[in-house]
Amino acid sequence: MYFKVRAARKEDCKEISRMIMELAVYEKMPDQVKTSHEELERDGFSPNPFYECLIAEVPDEHRTKDGYTVVGYALYFYTYSTWKGRSVYMEDLYVMPDFRGKGIGKGLMAKVAQVGVEKQCVRLQLSVLEWNKPSLDFYIAKGAEDLTAKEGWHFLRFDGQTLDTLAKEAPKD
Amino acid sequence: MYFKVRAARKEDCKEISRMIMELAVYEKMPDQVKTSHEELERDGFSPNPFYECLIAEVPDEHRTKDGYTVVGYALYFYTYSTWKGRSVYMEDLYVMPDFRGKGIGKGLMAKVAQVGVEKQCVRLQLSVLEWNKPSLDFYIAKGAEDLTAKEGWHFLRFDGQTLDTLAKEAPKD
Repeated sequence: MYFKVRAARKEDCKEISRMIMELAVYEKMPDQVKTSHEELERDGFSPNPFYECLIAEVPDEHRTKDGYTVVGYALYFYTYSTWKGRSVYMEDLYVMPDFRGKGIGKGLMAKVAQVGVEKQCVRLQLSVLEWNKPSLDFYIAKGAEDLTAKEGWHFLRFDGQTLDTLAKEAPKD
Repeated sequence: MYFKVRAARKEDCKEISRMIMELAVYEKMPDQVKTSHEELERDGFSPNPFYECLIAEVPDEHRTKDGYTVVGYALYFYTYSTWKGRSVYMEDLYVMPDFRGKGIGKGLMAKVAQVGVEKQCVRLQLSVLEWNKPSLDFYIAKGAEDLTAKEGWHFLRFDGQTLDTLAKEAPKD
């Protein structure tokens, strides 16, 4: 099937927001989604954006029964290694169920890699839940290294009250 | 001991570069450091910087035997959760050995949290090697959740040849 991958525009945020929710429903955690499409517009399409996004589109004759032609997205941002320099991190990769197995996910990910390489990034990184074997196998098959399994990297988070408490303990200027 | 935490300036990059190397020597991987202070200057101090950095300074009377007054740093950047929005990620936190146990590491981290909260970030995240128990315990004691242990998040990476191969497979525009 023909599909096109292109940089998302501000007016795509409603579609991106819809697919973020579809992914969360698939993961059985729709109540976890707190971002609105207005926030996506603000955070991705102002100076110094917090993320960039690619979308996959199919021609009108392949639109879904609900009328959608935007059928996948990859959302990413730039990170930094003090040892290696510029890196790109892919936060989400999603393709609507009816459009899987057609190379769209691979196309989106390869385009993120290309955008990163053009910006002199030396790594493309991402995180996967260990129970999500199909995804883990997909990335490993494409050549990714599992650094948690290989080197023991653990991912830590402060949020909510622990983040507020920490922030309040900052030394005065 | 009195110390001051402030935003790094371009002219601090030599000091930051020195401490990046000290940290790598401590971790027994000094040959892994490929970034120069010129790259740190370019990547952190141009429009749309790839990272931000805080440094900890002590008064001149506490300078090290080598004459250093910059004794620690925290390097961080902004990331994005499609569920929760803006986040901040702390890539490195380092305090020179003679200055540990004085609250400098905590001060740097709390300031990163404060900067993040001011930018409406809802998470402060970081990664730790599981064998690095002192660091892991430090972060957990401050309230961090270990999402790899709790939810099974694995960290994946493409680099070198696998990244180049992937980038070359990107669909044409």
